[in-house]
Amino acid sequence: VTLATDPLLAPLPSSLPEVERVARMPAGFAAGGATAGIKVSGRPDLALIVATAGPAAAAAVFTPNRFAAAPVRLSEANLLATGPEGRGRWGWAEAVVSTSGSANAATGAAGDADQAEIGRAVAGVTAAAPTRVLHLSTGVIGTRLPVERVRAGLERLAPALAPTDEGLLAAAEALRTTDSVEKVATAQVEVADSTGRPRTVTVSGIAKGVGMIHPRMATMLSVLLADAGAPPPILAVILGRVAARTWNQLSVDGDTSTNDTVFLLDSATRTAVMSPDPQAIAALERGVEAVARDLARQQAADGEGASSLITCQVSGAADEADARAVARAVVSSSLVKAAVHGRDPNWGRIAGAAGNAVVAEEAILRAAGMADEEARRRAGQPAALDPARLRIAIAAHLVYDGPTGGPVAFDRAAARSAMDAPETLIRLDLGLGDGTGEAFGCDLTEAYVRENSEYTT
Amino acid sequence: VTLATDPLLAPLPSSLPEVERVARMPAGFAAGGATAGIKVSGRPDLALIVATAGPAAAAAVFTPNRFAAAPVRLSEANLLATGPEGRGRWGWAEAVVSTSGSANAATGAAGDADQAEIGRAVAGVTAAAPTRVLHLSTGVIGTRLPVERVRAGLERLAPALAPTDEGLLAAAEALRTTDSVEKVATAQVEVADSTGRPRTVTVSGIAKGVGMIHPRMATMLSVLLADAGAPPPILAVILGRVAARTWNQLSVDGDTSTNDTVFLLDSATRTAVMSPDPQAIAALERGVEAVARDLARQQAADGEGASSLITCQVSGAADEADARAVARAVVSSSLVKAAVHGRDPNWGRIAGAAGNAVVAEEAILRAAGMADEEARRRAGQPAALDPARLRIAIAAHLVYDGPTGGPVAFDRAAARSAMDAPETLIRLDLGLGDGTGEAFGCDLTEAYVRENSEYTT
Repeated sequence: VTLATDPLLAPLPSSLPEVERVARMPAGFAAGGATAGIKVSGRPDLALIVATAGPAAAAAVFTPNRFAAAPVRLSEANLLATGPEGRGRWGWAEAVVSTSGSANAATGAAGDADQAEIGRAVAGVTAAAPTRVLHLSTGVIGTRLPVERVRAGLERLAPALAPTDEGLLAAAEALRTTDSVEKVATAQVEVADSTGRPRTVTVSGIAKGVGMIHPRMATMLSVLLADAGAPPPILAVILGRVAARTWNQLSVDGDTSTNDTVFLLDSATRTAVMSPDPQAIAALERGVEAVARDLARQQAADGEGASSLITCQVSGAADEADARAVARAVVSSSLVKAAVHGRDPNWGRIAGAAGNAVVAEEAILRAAGMADEEARRRAGQPAALDPARLRIAIAAHLVYDGPTGGPVAFDRAAARSAMDAPETLIRLDLGLGDGTGEAFGCDLTEAYVRENSEYTT
Repeated sequence: VTLATDPLLAPLPSSLPEVERVARMPAGFAAGGATAGIKVSGRPDLALIVATAGPAAAAAVFTPNRFAAAPVRLSEANLLATGPEGRGRWGWAEAVVSTSGSANAATGAAGDADQAEIGRAVAGVTAAAPTRVLHLSTGVIGTRLPVERVRAGLERLAPALAPTDEGLLAAAEALRTTDSVEKVATAQVEVADSTGRPRTVTVSGIAKGVGMIHPRMATMLSVLLADAGAPPPILAVILGRVAARTWNQLSVDGDTSTNDTVFLLDSATRTAVMSPDPQAIAALERGVEAVARDLARQQAADGEGASSLITCQVSGAADEADARAVARAVVSSSLVKAAVHGRDPNWGRIAGAAGNAVVAEEAILRAAGMADEEARRRAGQPAALDPARLRIAIAAHLVYDGPTGGPVAFDRAAARSAMDAPETLIRLDLGLGDGTGEAFGCDLTEAYVRENSEYTT
């Protein structure tokens, strides 16, 4: 009875709206997917999304990888051209094109020319301005895109774009690489319009997993569509904060990709302007966060070789940055991941990982809303943690209780059974303050090693 | 013929002295190992090293893990007591005790009391002052040490300590956990004494591997002994710089242990004082570095489940901090490690990992000799890297050449064959400056996952 009321044995409460794992097309977009022949498997590998009611407001976060792929650099340049004061992080977009099977990364000037050519091809079939085309690509690093096949694919795909849920689902399907399932999520929220009247807004997202996932600032490939009527700078603020709490808290294998990109597009900005009221912005932000969080969880659960989603939720941290640092350290630990794979409640590895937690990079802290000076001071610093105050629970079993001396005698067999589930919840309370945060990962399996040893270069 | 002269296809030149993989006891120490019964396997699990000619000068680096184990905290406190101005990083020592099988980490106040009791037991059998006993422990986190067994073991071991190579080897043997072999290395260097005359100095080190290895500031458990006659502060400066170039460039699985400690002890400081001349210090530093580097390579090669050592050497970086960051990022990448396991010359993963390189933490940069202000500014910042200037070779095969457009057509079958070796050399030249650096890791194998999924908590 005492245990049942210990908040450490339950998930953290959430204020986010409910999410459905469906694609639901917001007003003002059409989309579709096709097989262009980039993948040898013959599966869909080309997705196209267009804004049908004029340019959509757009915001983006990108990988900071120095080998950022051609699509990343071209998207950034295009946003810079359409919204220069956004410094490549927001602007206007009429189309998003995604190719799967080749990352078009580390391909030099030739790869840049290929991507520009694809942009022109999109412009040709959609009447979009080339600078209003945003680009995504995913697949093997170092290989060129077959531009002619992509062009032919676009010519077949453009007339088939549909302003429907099925169109968005087809785009999600074409975004996949080795994902075992397509990843979609939708939330609906009430957001006040410019006259103060509540309007139901749809936020729907598509994403791909499943390897080279350890976002820093950016995300894996994801596109979120909304019809809220928010201007680009507001979308950028929302997306930065949401990414810091969701995708930047996701790790499959510790490697940050060269192609990570998330776009948030809003079709209604010129027709149904959202209220600038902080409450309206917060409502939209909750919708975007709910979708982003659910996509991140789908990506972790479908991580290469994974058999179990690992969610680490932290409470009682000195602040949110520390809470997120500790949660991220736990789900990123190879030893914790291997222990979860073995259904082994090896809390010593969790303690060890938590003790290594380091607060995120400056750019992530800034995106999350931390003041510039504090972000500079805090970046890369150890998170505050006191072993004598820390408490740890695995799958609702208290395993470590600092205030009573540390190690706890617990029912190991029951804990092992509880870990034999599609998701293992690791809860930590630091006993230091009010900061909460969470992170998502997956177990480390022999299948992961097999898949990635045998992957053809 | 052109290829053979490309420096990218060869290891970086080294100015370090040769190393023998033997234990060679420097003057002024005695050591031994015994089975105390901490390990259930019945293998040696207790090591003791004593300074036989009065207190030895000592320097240490420790894990920054917030769950730093009881032996780490007690050693730090003891050094603080004997050399307060060293702030726990240098002082004087008469004995080093090591227990293997239980980490005595996350054991609360009871664990601290156990470790103090072991210190008193060492003092009892060696006549050392308890504050001049340094402590190491390794094994499962969260379990208590069997203090009575350790005490009985010490009573048996103390009379058997020997000032011989065999004694040091026995200590190395008792330091092991799941290491497949003991790890020892020795170098001899000419160091000027206080009268300016050259003297042959022995530096001999012992270390353990093999999991939870990703040193940050500290190292895995290692003890280096010397008879150079250097004072403690000089030893501390040498050890900090050497650790930054060797152990801090070592990763097996990305997890920094709660127990990481390296001690550097010098027996001759009161009898044969070393010259304070910078050349003498540099000579000793080269000896210490040669031993540390070789031990780090042994640790990487024997990494849990590993079948191949991965050495990444970087040249042409803007400076050494950047070079080390890039090398560390490459050997720490799960995807690079899995590719090496599959003997797959997947250079795109190397490029991607290099593009994520982040300069080390402030404490490591300071230890390496960077000025405080620059260390603060550089810590956690991305390393400079330009894909158009970068060149990459795997096992002496050029695979990426930025200046000529990037991807290179290379003999994939020959590269695969060349990778089928106990060590794979990955060379990068950044084309930006004169900075060089290296890092050591190992491949990621199904055996690693198996071992760490099945490890009993």
